[in-house]
This record gives sequence, C-alpha cells and structure tokens, in this order.
Amino acid sequence: MFPALDWVSHHALTKPRAVALRNYDDSLSRTWAELEPRVGRLASGLLKEWGLRRGDRVALLSNGDLRFFELQFACMRAGLIIMPLNFRLTPHELAGLCREMNAAMLVNDAAWQRQADEVATLANIERRLSWGAPDSAFDRMAEEGDVMVFPDDIGSAHPTHILFTSGTTGKTKGAYSTHGTLIAQALNQVQFAGVAEAGAHVFVPIPLFHAGGLTLANPILYFGGQVTIAARFDPAATARVLGSRTVGITHLALVPLMYRMIADTAEFADLDLSGLRVALVAGGRLPPELLETYARKGINFTSQYGGTETGPTITALDPARVDKALAGSCGQKAKHVEIRLMDTDGKDVPEGQPGEIWVRGPAITPSYIGRPRDMDFTGDWFRTGDVARRDAEGFYYIVDRVKDMYKSGGENVSSVEVEEILIRHPSIAEVAVIGTAHEKWGEVGLAVVVLAAGGSLTLGDIEEFCDGRLARFKQPKALKIVEALPRNVTGKIAKAQLRDMFGGTRSA
Amino acid sequence: MFPALDWVSHHALTKPRAVALRNYDDSLSRTWAELEPRVGRLASGLLKEWGLRRGDRVALLSNGDLRFFELQFACMRAGLIIMPLNFRLTPHELAGLCREMNAAMLVNDAAWQRQADEVATLANIERRLSWGAPDSAFDRMAEEGDVMVFPDDIGSAHPTHILFTSGTTGKTKGAYSTHGTLIAQALNQVQFAGVAEAGAHVFVPIPLFHAGGLTLANPILYFGGQVTIAARFDPAATARVLGSRTVGITHLALVPLMYRMIADTAEFADLDLSGLRVALVAGGRLPPELLETYARKGINFTSQYGGTETGPTITALDPARVDKALAGSCGQKAKHVEIRLMDTDGKDVPEGQPGEIWVRGPAITPSYIGRPRDMDFTGDWFRTGDVARRDAEGFYYIVDRVKDMYKSGGENVSSVEVEEILIRHPSIAEVAVIGTAHEKWGEVGLAVVVLAAGGSLTLGDIEEFCDGRLARFKQPKALKIVEALPRNVTGKIAKAQLRDMFGGTRSA
Repeated sequence: MFPALDWVSHHALTKPRAVALRNYDDSLSRTWAELEPRVGRLASGLLKEWGLRRGDRVALLSNGDLRFFELQFACMRAGLIIMPLNFRLTPHELAGLCREMNAAMLVNDAAWQRQADEVATLANIERRLSWGAPDSAFDRMAEEGDVMVFPDDIGSAHPTHILFTSGTTGKTKGAYSTHGTLIAQALNQVQFAGVAEAGAHVFVPIPLFHAGGLTLANPILYFGGQVTIAARFDPAATARVLGSRTVGITHLALVPLMYRMIADTAEFADLDLSGLRVALVAGGRLPPELLETYARKGINFTSQYGGTETGPTITALDPARVDKALAGSCGQKAKHVEIRLMDTDGKDVPEGQPGEIWVRGPAITPSYIGRPRDMDFTGDWFRTGDVARRDAEGFYYIVDRVKDMYKSGGENVSSVEVEEILIRHPSIAEVAVIGTAHEKWGEVGLAVVVLAAGGSLTLGDIEEFCDGRLARFKQPKALKIVEALPRNVTGKIAKAQLRDMFGGTRSA
Repeated sequence: MFPALDWVSHHALTKPRAVALRNYDDSLSRTWAELEPRVGRLASGLLKEWGLRRGDRVALLSNGDLRFFELQFACMRAGLIIMPLNFRLTPHELAGLCREMNAAMLVNDAAWQRQADEVATLANIERRLSWGAPDSAFDRMAEEGDVMVFPDDIGSAHPTHILFTSGTTGKTKGAYSTHGTLIAQALNQVQFAGVAEAGAHVFVPIPLFHAGGLTLANPILYFGGQVTIAARFDPAATARVLGSRTVGITHLALVPLMYRMIADTAEFADLDLSGLRVALVAGGRLPPELLETYARKGINFTSQYGGTETGPTITALDPARVDKALAGSCGQKAKHVEIRLMDTDGKDVPEGQPGEIWVRGPAITPSYIGRPRDMDFTGDWFRTGDVARRDAEGFYYIVDRVKDMYKSGGENVSSVEVEEILIRHPSIAEVAVIGTAHEKWGEVGLAVVVLAAGGSLTLGDIEEFCDGRLARFKQPKALKIVEALPRNVTGKIAKAQLRDMFGGTRSA
C-alpha cells in the first residue's frame, strides 16, 4: 500500500500559478501555490493545536465557500474525516447526527454561528472553529504555523468524507468516501464530463454538503482544474456567470429544476453559452422541451445517475446521444462501475425488465458508518434501492429513485410505471401503488388513490382503464381511497409509511 | 478486490463506432465494436483451443501491427501475460528469454516466420500462432468461435505484460505490468501529455516490444482514443502522416534521434504540424537547436523520463516550460509517482546534489520476473540505477541513464558531469570516468582517455584544466590512456567492463 496522492501538493508543484478555487461572492481566490501552505497549516493545526487524532470526524456547517475545500484537503492530509452538515436540518437533528457520528470538532462559517452554537451545545462538542468574521480563527490557523506534509502512512483506503444521504426513504445515513473512491469517481467523470480536459472550470452554486455539489468539483480538482463557488443558487446570477468570458466557466452540474429556473430568467434569451462545455444533470429527468430550449443554445446535457454512496457517476450519457436523452435515459455504465439489475429474489432480471440497481467497483463507498454492511451489500455489490431498466445498447432508464417494485406472478412490476398510467384517469388526483401479499401471485399491486374533485372510482374502473395500457400482471388488484397521501419533508410520497398503513409488502 | 477493467468492452459499449486501432501500412482498422468480439474470441481460443492457463506467458515476435493490441487485450481478458520480443536479438538470445520466462506459446507475424521457427525449435515451444499470411490462424481464431467476457476473478494486481529492459547495463531483465500499473501509468500521462483529451490519436512508428512504443498508446486506449501503427520508422513517411489532416494525428512519442531525422527530411520545411498537440520525447535530451527547429513549427516538446520497470512517466515536463527544456530538464514528478534522490549509502542527497533515482507508487512494476525483489527494491522503493539532480522548483535533470556515480570524501560525484568537462580538453577525444578505491577519500575518479590525434595528456594537465571548472572533490585523481573505450552493442560505453579492466569500484 503506497501513500495516497496529495492533490494539492502535486498541483502546487506542477501548476503553482493556476487558480484552484474562487468565491463568486467575495472574489476571494487561491492559486495552488497559495492553497498548499494553507492546507498544510490547517492540517498541522487540527492535529497539534486542537489535538485531533487520525480518523476523527470534523463536522462543518457552512454555505458554499472555498474554505470548504481548504478544510477538506486539510482533513485529507491530516487523516481526519470531513463531515459536511445540511444546514436545512434543525439544530436538534444536526446534533443527533454529530452525536451518532461522534464528531470531534465543529467548524462553521459566521453565517451559521447561532445554529452552530446550538448544535455544539446539544452535541457537547467543545472544539470549535469558524471563518467569515474578521480575523477568524480558521484563517489565522491557515496563515500561521507549521506546514504539514502528506504523511507516508495514509493510503488509498483511508476515509476522507462522511456524506449523508438525503434520507427520502427513511433515516439519513452517513456513507464514507476514501482517497481511493474519490479518484475512481474522478475517472468515471472523464469520458462524458470531460473533467480531465485542459482548462476545466466548474461553477458550483449548490450546497457542498451533498454529493451533488461535489459531483464535478472534486474530479476537476483532482485533474488540476478550477472551481468557482457561490454561497447560494441564484438563477439570474448563474446565467450571468455562465455568459461571462472573463469568468470562463466550462462545467456545470445542477438538478433539473435549476436548469428550468435559469431558462426562465430574463438573462437567458440573449445568453451566450458557447463557453459551457458540459452541462451535467442528475437527480431526475429533464423534460423534452427543456432539452430543446438548451439545445437551441448549443447545449446537450450530460445526464447522470449516481448517489451519495456510489459517487455521482454510476451511469453517464454521451451528450451526443440526444435520442437517448429524449427517451429519458441517464446513460450507460461509467468506466469503473459494474451494474446488475436484480429482481426481489436477488436474481438478474431478464433483458429489458426493470430491476433493482446493484453496483460494484472502486468508486463505491466501502460502507455506511455504524450500520452492518449486510444491510446494504450482497458480497461486493451495493444494493442501491433504485430501479431501472436497460435497453439493448446498454442505456439505463431509472423507473424509480427508491426501491419501489414488487413481484407478481414471477414478474417484476415497477410501481412508478403503474402510477404513471393511473394518474391519467380523470377521477384520480394522486396515486401511489404498493405491493401487498397475495396467495396466488405472491404479491399484487394496491393502488392508494386521492380522488379528483367530483370523481368516483372502483377497482373495476381501474381494470377497465388499464386494459390495453398495462399488462395484466402489472394491473392493481386492490384499491384504497384516501383523503391525502403521506409525504416526507421534501414532498416525496412516503411509501414506507403507506406500506405500514395498508399492510404493504417490502421487498428485500 | 474488484475485477479489473476491460477497456475494450467498456469502449465497445460506449463508443462502438469510434476507430480504436489502424495500421498505417495496410490501412486495416478496428472500431471498438469490431475489436470487442475479436478480443473475446482470441481470449477464448487461447484458453480453450490452445489449452493455455491463467498466468501463462505468450511470446510475440512481430512488427508493429494492430494485432499486437488485439493479442494484448485477449491476454488481459484471458488472464495470460503477453511477452513481446525484440526482433533485433538473435534467435538464440530470444530462445534463451523464452526458456527463462517459460513461454507457453509463440505468436509471430509472417515477416518473422523463419526466426520464430528457429526460436520455437530452440526453446521447444509447441504452441504456435501467426498472422500476416492469407487465411492466417490468428485471424481465423479472431473471427470464429465463442466470445469470452472478462472474468470476475481477474483483479487489478493480475499481470498483463512482461516487458524486457534494453539491457545496456548488463543482462536484459523482464519486468511485469499489471491491470493496475497500466491505469496508473495512464493517469501519469494526463497532465502534460493530454491523453484524456477528446480526439487523442497517437502515431506509433516504433517497435511495440519496448516500453517506449507503448508510452502513449496504452494510456490513449485506456481513455478511448485512437492508435495508428506503422510497421517501421520512416522519417519521411512519419512527416507526411503528421502533416495529414485526414489522418488527424495529435500525439507522437519518439526518441531524440528520430525527431532529428524527421527535421532532416525534405518534407519538413513545408510541414504543417498544427494538428500535433503533444510531441513527447524520452530516452534522452533534445539539443537546443532541435528544440528551436520544432518551436518554429509551434511544437514544444513534452520531455519525460521513465523506463520499462516504472512506466513511461516518472517525470514529465510541462511543454510551456521551454526554459527548463533548454536547461535539459525532463520535468517534474508525475502525479502518481514519488521520487527520492539517494546517495550510495541509501540516504537522501542534499538539495541540488545528484543522487540515484528511487521511485514508488502504483505505476511501478511489482517486480522483475525470476529475480529476488531485494536486488532492485528497498522496501516500497524501486532503485532505478539512474542518477539525477533536482532544482528548487522540483525539476529533474538526468545526469546519467545508468547508475554511474561514486562518493569522494563524503560527496556524491556523477561521472557524467566530470566527463562533460573533460571532453572539452583539446587533447581528449573520448573519456570515461569511473570510481576507484582510495584510502583517504573512500573513492576517487579515474579518467580513462582516448587521446585526440596528436594530443598528449598528464594528470597534471587534467587538474589544471579542471580547476575553476569542477570542484576539487570531483576532479579525477588518476588517469589511464587507452586506444579505445569498450562499448556495448548499442554503442554505449561499457562502464562495467571498464571497471573490470581498471579495478573500478561499483556502488550498490
């Protein structure tokens, strides 16, 4: 086992004058040569001044700022684990995560001082550090003292980050990345996201505490490119940044909603996007009219599917394959990823059928923190809980972002596929389909429906409506009418809760 | 341990119609989609028809041809080890290598049929396969039968190639590469050789049996680019290929002599080299006037230092650093390489002093075949036997391609540095300096000199000449005048033989 690579010192040596990091809001920037001693002093300070020890977790509550990456690289060099926190959670929730993950220190920016104080009190964290106020302790530490060099005994398998899942399917979980998974993730972004091309420069106006914000930033930094960070997402400001030749942004990674918001700005009509080489979209499917809107500006999207546990790129779409983008594909397997689609019995589904996505490879998290590995892994394979089908050319189509399928008469059924048909029925305002146990078929679909105003519905109506639209085995065999569907904090239907309410089966 | 990556099947899936390989001589070409089943059938045939077993060595005697890479990828998929042979060696020498390495099969092209027959007889190799004649067995195997897929149980550490050192310092040695070292070597070629850039296309007119021929080819294939192969080096033909927009060559890696030969062609004056992004030079230093000749065509060289055992890129020079190229630097450490410069006692030399290059990292061979690891490694560190110094910016300067230094009065002395001074003396036609034992200083330099016509020389003359030009401790303390210096087959001075003749010491 060789020591892991210290990205910062390598680039400080080989491209010292190139800018590595820049803040959009205050124009603060760091060349690699400036970054190197700051990272080395922070690493030294965390260990020597603050008494942290190899493997300790450093929680961070901050807006987007280049100091996020300074702290990240300092932790990587010191053998510590950075643990970025979602500032949308309550102080009580954050304190719970800090206690559960045994956070040894809490770093924050001045904008989150009050919340950080509360978290620290609740979680009993004594080590505190902050930036953003004049003469901040963070910046002082970065500017004074010994410069630590990367130690010989930190190898590729050493943890670097704990990132939390968004938790739409239940309790949030902390997955860790390592020096090795970060590089494998970077390699997965080369082919269709061009992160290794000369001059790559990504604009990141989204939070850095989720995998999404790091989707392109860390791969580009590994290859020596540049990251410009905004504290928050502003569609008009983003449009202006993208159109500026002076800034020179080449890369962007956002969720579909944000691309729509940019297209809706007054700035968009005259916007010159010719400098933008890669517009990556993850976390959902872009509707055809939005694909068309951007295509008129010369932009074809690089669609991807990935996650906190797997790195951003399980699949990636060649932007030239507009046909597949229009069909809703998130692309083909990334280079260093293997994918299987599995039925609920843990067998590979037949070609073309939907199955749960299982993935394997050097970019995947070794495990969640504090959770038995078997709960999420079968051997080498991480079970994503997401469901997709694959076409004959190897392109994937996500049919559900969370595991939501059942097996009826030996056939895998995706709830989402059934729901997409039912929602067209004039009497149905909202619908969720879950599997329930059935003596003959193993499982059958139960449709839970919120009626449209003045509507009425029987199971017979549903069967009649589905005939010709859905294969018989996919059609719901039971119906419940409810006033409202249970939803989680982000507005997604809470399937797990529905299953509890109506005796639904839960596969795997 | 995950399965290693099968480059061919990945690119066949994601860029099926792109050309991967092309022969310059007969215009034969393979897209990734065409390559995939050929590789799979060859892999299957080698195992099933020919009865080869995981880890068996497949010797190859051939000119440059795309089938080299077909066989390489088939071996990688089958878990076999390709062992390309140097056709400049005699059949007896080749048979010796085949016996020593226990070659299980000999593949050849028709151009080397007679030699291959002789090698096979001498080394008693029964399994034979060839291409190049009509209806060749190789092509038949590639076109018929089962297509093997990459097996689950070949991991990154599995050997892929045995490559032989050029053997200028003694007996040739076989070093092996693995799936993992090949990828690390590709990563080392990203920053200054641009192998991950879209459209990368390398022209390889040099033999594929040495590391040099694979310097850019395999990294570019890993990233999905294209390789065009010529059977032999022809300076005028190379000039025409480079100037052709239709061919579209972007990358080239040659030794200095070949760049000079191209510059000396009639074609060069009007040659448009604007399509050539990377002109890599290894195996020696380009003289300033040749740097200037190519600079007038817009070409700045990417100098590198590397070797069979280490991959092509231990160091790489940013082509923008023309100042360092003129000063003779081969660049800074590559990304996934660590370098130390060591004295003969195995201690790091002081900054600026020459020392033996020790390297460590995932691109380095795990070991030679059939040679105790300790002979060449100290812990993780491979001792290259080459000598360099490093300047304050981390740029390396090779002072000798083979270990050729001695320690006088506690100071490391590079023989080459002394020789470069002495050769300027009007009475010296040729000179070689070796270390000899000395009671007071440990070792001192002995100058072995061939006199210029009409010249005469005493040790006093040398001391006088060296004063002001060389520090006292570097100056030779003994002189031998000879008729001629012993040289090896490639024309290099045989220092080992000199040491035997004159009682020289040999460090390490």
